[in-house]
Amino acid sequence: MCIDFYFMKIALKEAFIAFYKNEIPIGAVITYQNIVIAKSHNLTETLCDITAHAEMLVLNLASNYLKKKYIKKCTLYVTLEPCVMCAGALFWSQIGRVVCGASNPSKRGFIYSGTKLHPQTEFVSGIMKNQCQALIQKFFFYKRIHKKKKKFI
Amino acid sequence: MCIDFYFMKIALKEAFIAFYKNEIPIGAVITYQNIVIAKSHNLTETLCDITAHAEMLVLNLASNYLKKKYIKKCTLYVTLEPCVMCAGALFWSQIGRVVCGASNPSKRGFIYSGTKLHPQTEFVSGIMKNQCQALIQKFFFYKRIHKKKKKFI
Repeated sequence: MCIDFYFMKIALKEAFIAFYKNEIPIGAVITYQNIVIAKSHNLTETLCDITAHAEMLVLNLASNYLKKKYIKKCTLYVTLEPCVMCAGALFWSQIGRVVCGASNPSKRGFIYSGTKLHPQTEFVSGIMKNQCQALIQKFFFYKRIHKKKKKFI
Repeated sequence: MCIDFYFMKIALKEAFIAFYKNEIPIGAVITYQNIVIAKSHNLTETLCDITAHAEMLVLNLASNYLKKKYIKKCTLYVTLEPCVMCAGALFWSQIGRVVCGASNPSKRGFIYSGTKLHPQTEFVSGIMKNQCQALIQKFFFYKRIHKKKKKFI
């Protein structure tokens, strides 16, 4: 849907913010009635907290905003397929829809690991896949170069 | 080990605090060099946050205390087998040891769902199993009675 691209673009902007903070560039947005009620990006390094993934942060923000534990009528837009932890959290939240950009080729992607979302959750994948993937690849490319440079100094 | 019972007792005390707050009674403790550095209990209702499981809260507290994302030399004591979300978080934390009380018979227990902890994490189960289980059963027993009473009013 056209609207999915619109919201994924906002999530991608968040991922860019993470990139410039030297965080793994993943961004997420939660919408309710087609209005953004939460947006954030990966902050694991900044907060020194392995649970501070973009999805966890926006789930928390959305629950706070709606004053509800279960956010059945909301949609999550995230630039990378959620990990097992985030998929577990999405299950508890009973979120209505999850739209993701790039798929996660590592073993920690929730699809590979066999983790399931809530039966009521609709799942869509591949929205702006190339842009989302390119940003992550760029991040790790620079990381590798930086490591190699360190070796030679 | 005797020391496991000692720390599980503290986790069980936390679970009791949750019980009296009308939260699902699960408590958790994280130790480092045999000293408690974090303790908490389930606060999903109080904080209106589905991610506020005891394990997530103590992971956060321990990371803050040690100023480290990875807490390889720590041990988690938790009164109930972690769910998929918490097991995912424990994987990222690379925690050294996980000791749990009662096992989780529901599909959301991490063992049933096939979720794996970090390969470096030692896992022990069944410490003070009966006491941990009894508290949870008591909680849901009272919940059912309360529901039935409501039906008759």
